[in-house]
Formats: sequence, C-alpha cells, structure tokens
Amino acid sequence: MRAPQEVAVVGAGLVGCLTACFLARRGYQVTLYERRSDPRSATAERGRSINLALSERGLDALRRVGLDEAVMKAALPMPGRMMHAPDGTLSFQPYSADGQRAINSISRSELNRTMLEGALALPGVRARFEHRLTGLDVDSGLMDFDTPDGPVQRSAQIVLAADGAYSAVRGRLQFLPGFDFSQDFLDYGYKELTIPARDGEFALDPGALHIWPRGQAMMIALPNPDRSFTCTLFWPKSGPGSFDELDTAERFEEFFAANYADARALMPDLADDYTHNPIGHLVTMRAYPWHARGADAVVGLLGDAAHAVVPFYGQGANCGFEDCVELDRCLEETGDDFPEALALYGSRRKEHADTIAELALENFVEMRDKVASRSFLLQKRIEHGLERLLPGRYVSRYELVSFSTVPYAEVQRRITRQRRAVVAVALGALAAVGVTAGLLRRR
Amino acid sequence: MRAPQEVAVVGAGLVGCLTACFLARRGYQVTLYERRSDPRSATAERGRSINLALSERGLDALRRVGLDEAVMKAALPMPGRMMHAPDGTLSFQPYSADGQRAINSISRSELNRTMLEGALALPGVRARFEHRLTGLDVDSGLMDFDTPDGPVQRSAQIVLAADGAYSAVRGRLQFLPGFDFSQDFLDYGYKELTIPARDGEFALDPGALHIWPRGQAMMIALPNPDRSFTCTLFWPKSGPGSFDELDTAERFEEFFAANYADARALMPDLADDYTHNPIGHLVTMRAYPWHARGADAVVGLLGDAAHAVVPFYGQGANCGFEDCVELDRCLEETGDDFPEALALYGSRRKEHADTIAELALENFVEMRDKVASRSFLLQKRIEHGLERLLPGRYVSRYELVSFSTVPYAEVQRRITRQRRAVVAVALGALAAVGVTAGLLRRR
Repeated sequence: MRAPQEVAVVGAGLVGCLTACFLARRGYQVTLYERRSDPRSATAERGRSINLALSERGLDALRRVGLDEAVMKAALPMPGRMMHAPDGTLSFQPYSADGQRAINSISRSELNRTMLEGALALPGVRARFEHRLTGLDVDSGLMDFDTPDGPVQRSAQIVLAADGAYSAVRGRLQFLPGFDFSQDFLDYGYKELTIPARDGEFALDPGALHIWPRGQAMMIALPNPDRSFTCTLFWPKSGPGSFDELDTAERFEEFFAANYADARALMPDLADDYTHNPIGHLVTMRAYPWHARGADAVVGLLGDAAHAVVPFYGQGANCGFEDCVELDRCLEETGDDFPEALALYGSRRKEHADTIAELALENFVEMRDKVASRSFLLQKRIEHGLERLLPGRYVSRYELVSFSTVPYAEVQRRITRQRRAVVAVALGALAAVGVTAGLLRRR
Repeated sequence: MRAPQEVAVVGAGLVGCLTACFLARRGYQVTLYERRSDPRSATAERGRSINLALSERGLDALRRVGLDEAVMKAALPMPGRMMHAPDGTLSFQPYSADGQRAINSISRSELNRTMLEGALALPGVRARFEHRLTGLDVDSGLMDFDTPDGPVQRSAQIVLAADGAYSAVRGRLQFLPGFDFSQDFLDYGYKELTIPARDGEFALDPGALHIWPRGQAMMIALPNPDRSFTCTLFWPKSGPGSFDELDTAERFEEFFAANYADARALMPDLADDYTHNPIGHLVTMRAYPWHARGADAVVGLLGDAAHAVVPFYGQGANCGFEDCVELDRCLEETGDDFPEALALYGSRRKEHADTIAELALENFVEMRDKVASRSFLLQKRIEHGLERLLPGRYVSRYELVSFSTVPYAEVQRRITRQRRAVVAVALGALAAVGVTAGLLRRR
C-alpha cells in the first residue's frame, strides 16, 4: 500500500474545499490554507457576489462526494428568466423546453460553509485560516505565509491552488518561462443592491432569475432563503449612464428611478447600498499550462485560479467543480502519478474553460440586450418547439450548458451541427414547397 | 517659466536612454534607475541578443536627438537576405526594389553605451546603476530599490518604465483593476552561436542578413564590426529536432552538422557555445492602458515594458524608439500635461504596437519556411517589379516597415488596399485578354 501523501491546497473557497473532499477520498492528507478567517465564525463580506447559480455540472460534482443533499437544502430553484421592461411589464422565459428544469440560487457563504464542513469531516483534512501566501518556491514546494502570529513557512510536494481569480500561486507561476497568461477586463463594473422581504414575503416571484435588460446595461436579481433578493447592477464604467457619470447618491437615485422604476419601489435602502457597496470588476483570466513541475514539487491550478470567467452564464463555480472531477479522474487513470495527472487534466480541461469564457462574454450581450427583443423571444420559442419535436436530438445551448455535463467545447460543436441540420431541413422544406407550387402551376 | 519637473525613468537600456534624451531637451530633470551595473564599465552578458537591426524608425528617432551619426559609425548595412540552402547553395534577396536600402546590424551593448553617454551629456540627466526596483506605490510615486548598499527609497511624481519585457513596474500595474495584460510564449527557444572572423576577414558576406531556413526551424546571422557573425538558432523547444531532443553536445553537433553544414564548417567553438549559452525564450507581451494615474503621481510604460514582440521583424527597438517620439509629441501637444500626454500617447500607439506584434509572429513563418520556396521568390520579384513600375505608389510591406515611418497599422491598411488594386488590375487585364480573344475569333 502507498503511504498517504501530503497535499497543500491553497484557498478554502468552493473549489478548494471540493478538491480536499476528492483527495481525502483517495487517501491523501490535505491541508487547506486560507487567507480569510474561518467562514464558520465570520460574517460574509459586504457587497461581494452573495449568491450564485448552481446547475447540473456543480451538482454532479457534489453528488460524487455526497454533498449534494446538504447543499440543496438551502437552494431556491429558478426554472426561467423574468424580464422587467422599463414600463414594468413582466415576461417569463423558461430555461428548458419542458419548463421543469431549474438552476439554483444558492448563498455563496452558505455553500462555502457546508462544503468546508463536509471536507473537514473527512479523515486527513485540516484547515489553516488567516494564512496569506506571500511566496512559493516551485522547485522545493516551500510556501511562505503571513499569519496573525507572523510569517510561517510550510512545504508540500504537491501544491494545488484554488485561490481564485487573483491567485497568488498563479502570480508566482507567471514568472516561469513558457507560462502563458492573460487578464482582460470588461469596461463594465458591478454593484450589489438589495430588495428586502416585504411583510415577510418575497417582493418578486422567487421562481425566476430576474433581469432588467437595458441595452448597454442591466440588473439581475436572485432570491435568497431569507426572502430578500440580491440584485447586481452591471453598468459601464464610463460614458452615459455609467458609474463614473452617476457618481453622487442623487444622480444615481434619479437615473435608477427613471430606468428601473419597479425595482426602485422595492428598495428602501438604495442610497445606503449605493454608498457602502464597492464597485466590482469583471475580468476574464486565461492561463496555461495549469501546472508547473519543480525539482521536488509539483504545482497545479484549479477553478478561477486557472480560468476566471465573467459571471453571465452562471458557470464560474460549476466549471471549477468540473475541474475537481476531471483531476480526480486523471489521478485514477495515472495511478495517482500527480505530475502526470495534472498535465493530463490541464490538457483536457483547457479547451472547455476557454469555451465557457467566450460563452459567458457572449451571454452578457444576450442578457442585457437581446432578451428584450421580440425576435429573440420568437427564436427561443422556435428552439423550445424543436426540442419538444425532437426530444434528446435537438437541445438548446443553454440547456446543454446548464442541465447536462457534456463538456463545454463539445456543447459548442453540437450546437454548430444542430444549426446546420436545421438550416438544411428548412432549405429542403422551402425547396419542396417550391417544387410543389411548380407542379401545381403546371396542372 | 515652469519649474523643471523631476522624472524617474526605470531602466537605462535603449528606450530608457532615449526617453531621457527627449525629456532633457524639454527641460526636465531625469534620473535613470538601472538594475544592471554601468555598461560603460561592465562587459556584455554572454548569450543574450548581441546585435539588432536598426532601421528607419529607429534612425528617425535618433536623428531627433542628434545621436544618429554617433550610432551609425559602428553600423554594418545589410541591404538584403542571404539564404543558405541545406546543400550550401546561396541566394540573395534585396530588401528594397532598388537594392540600395539597408537595415543596419548594430551591437546592442555598443548602442546602449553610445545612447547612455548621449543622455548623460545633457543637462539634468543622471543615472543610478545597480538599482533594482522592488516596489512602487502608484499613488505616491514612492519606489523601493535594492542596491549593493541595501534598500533605498526614492520618489517621483512622474515614473516612466522602460525596464523591458519582464518590467517590474508593469508587474505592479498588473494588480490594478482594469489593467489588461497578456504574455504568450512561442513553443520555440533560441540559442546564440558565433562564426568568428577567418584570417581577419568576414567568413560570410557582411552585406546581408544570413538565413538558414529549415521549415520548422531556422538560424540567422548578423555581422559584427570585429568581423565575426552572431548567429541565433531558433528551434522548437520539444519534439523532433528540438532543444529538448538534442540535449547533449554530441546529439546537438551531429544534428547541426547534418542540417547547417556550411555554417558548421565556420564554427570552431560550436560545442563551447552550445554548452555555455542559455536557451532564450520568445514572448509577446501586451498591456493596456500604458499609464496609471495615482493620487499624486503618474506612471507610464514605454518600449518592451508596454509591448514586447518576438524579434522576427527586427522592429523591437525601432518600435520602442517610436514610442519616445510619440510621447514627446504628446507632451508638446498637451503643453507638458504629463497625465494627459501619457493617456494620449498610449491611445495612439496601442494599435501600432499590436500590429507589429502580429507582423513579427507572421514573419517567423516567412523566414523559417517561405523564403526557401520558389513561389515566394517569384512573388518577391513580382513585388519589386511593381515597385519599379509604380514608384512611390506600390511599396512592399517590408519596405514600409523597415524604410519608412508610416505607422505600422497604417502600413497594414495600405498593403490591403494595394493588394486589392493589384487583383483588380489583374482581373481587368484577364478580362481584356478574353474580350480581345473573342473579337479576334469573330473576324
């Protein structure tokens, strides 16, 4: 029997905790190092992405480590989008052809706590909080941390980074020759606002992801178990109707009331939220390779540390969870040869991460602009019609992304094939009509 | 009269020195901070890009600060390419239609010394060597340096970074939200080799840039004033015929002798060069914006720090020199409003830097592969024929890049227009031939 190896996982967020679960089940000793304080005692930070949409990919990963039921207890299913027109008119679009499938609104902090508890309940897993990584030697696996008790050094032959979009570990790998990296910011910022419960009830339908599409800007809202909604405003950073322009509480409130009137009426704390919540940034980060091999250690990247995406497809966490599943599969296939498994994992996952990064950028345009148009609604109706007509053979991209575990790049290839087939059938039908008309005329 | 402002220029390489020259002429106090020791006393580093091709853009910039003559004293003009076939056959391609225009082989260290001396001869310019930047606060302009005498702090309200592809200053800006950045490595490495003088004479024609195109790999050689040639081998990092595969002196020498036979015969020190010279990396770095504004300071990027390109168009230094010219122009236009001038400079230069980055990547394929083909040689001959036929109206891309100061993106647009016109004329000519043939047949 192989001696259990020690693995350091940097970051005890969602992906770090799931990584620990998978590794513990393979018999590894895992230490989670986390920059923040213990989330089981601390309160959530204000103004940071408070809830997220968990869908099939994430659930599939959680099922494999037996955490799906615990997580889903606090989930609020959203089977479709509810669009809010400027005049307050509502229109609902189901996400699936049968209207039954849903993505799930989950509190990020709640999810993190559940997953951390799940990880720490497994033999061999421990966590060190308030450990901020300040140095990493890829050759030796030596890590420097700043802690409340001063700097400490720890080492591990296997270091896995799940420390998010601004990963300190990836920051170190960036200095290695041959390490490709990019960070691309959108010219948009985001700010979180709240629609509190009204008389103890949800102020909007909790069975939907709410969208206020406004062309170059938008707001979304997801329900919380306490019957409030967390709203996120996505606005340009500069130019007309931007955070730069609307830089006082008065200007902001006036513009907001004019463009999001129905929401404004539900936000008693708007001025306070505006003043206290920071403007967040939207970035796509790409890196490759996702591992680095030193003389005596190997370092790997998972989740946002390897591929941060913008939030518009609701796939950031789901995609990160898939990384953990794939790494586990590669460890199985390579007989737990970590360097080999990490290389294989990166080579398999990279195209899928690149695909969802592109889809997430495209979906921003769809959400803020297209969903409000009639032709888009018609297209969605035709799509769902085709899905019902050809069950399992014609499936929309949204459904394949959100309600299946078909790898993202495979989804894209399948969508391309489907569209070609539909065009061919349509042209064939037109030709048939033409021939029939010709025959009729000859009579 | 405005009080002379203090500017810190990080990096006393080619672009840093030229920046200092331009600023001193505008009346600024300039301090150059350089990581390396004083190049006027030190010997050049071994195995680093020892010479470069200076062309019109670089010369134009040097003329503006009166350094062109001093620099050109040590230049060796190369009016064309000399291709070395595997069997040793030579073929020469002039770079210009008239065969007279030349790019210039210049020693990088010699050029650096001349430019540093030129900068330090101007009033208000001073240099601090062995100052390695370890920290920068964009708000205050406070800089931390490691020096042989321990750490020191300096500050300046204007900090300009000309510290190269691996810029420490840009490394700090990368943590600012909204700062886009990418680094993309080629799967190729490079190694420098030497063809020494033979009986006191050049062993190859010094009036050419020599190329050994070998499909997936190549070697180039540029002449030096001491009658040696500096050769640079561009090989894949892994796979057949790669640095990885040919990792012992024996394997390397055997492969080299088989594929570069004529050069091998001129390299008595091949084994020594192979063993001692490191394998360099080829990277394209993109960043934007090229400046950052703090509360009390502004930081700007110039040259490789803003846009490192691969060396295959011989434009890295030339492009960096153009940055200095543009920044000077923007200072003039804005009445020396540094933050405004830096914003304007970046917005104007970015597309040109992106264009030359792409052209340099494309030219690698041309140099290692296409130059050896007959159809490419024919195309070049037709191109030069058109240039002689339509002087000043049809100009090849290579000439516009190397022998003009037409901005790079403008070159690309002009080439597109030219190609369209040639295709239209050719189609017109074909049509005319067809009509004429038809008329003749009717008679």
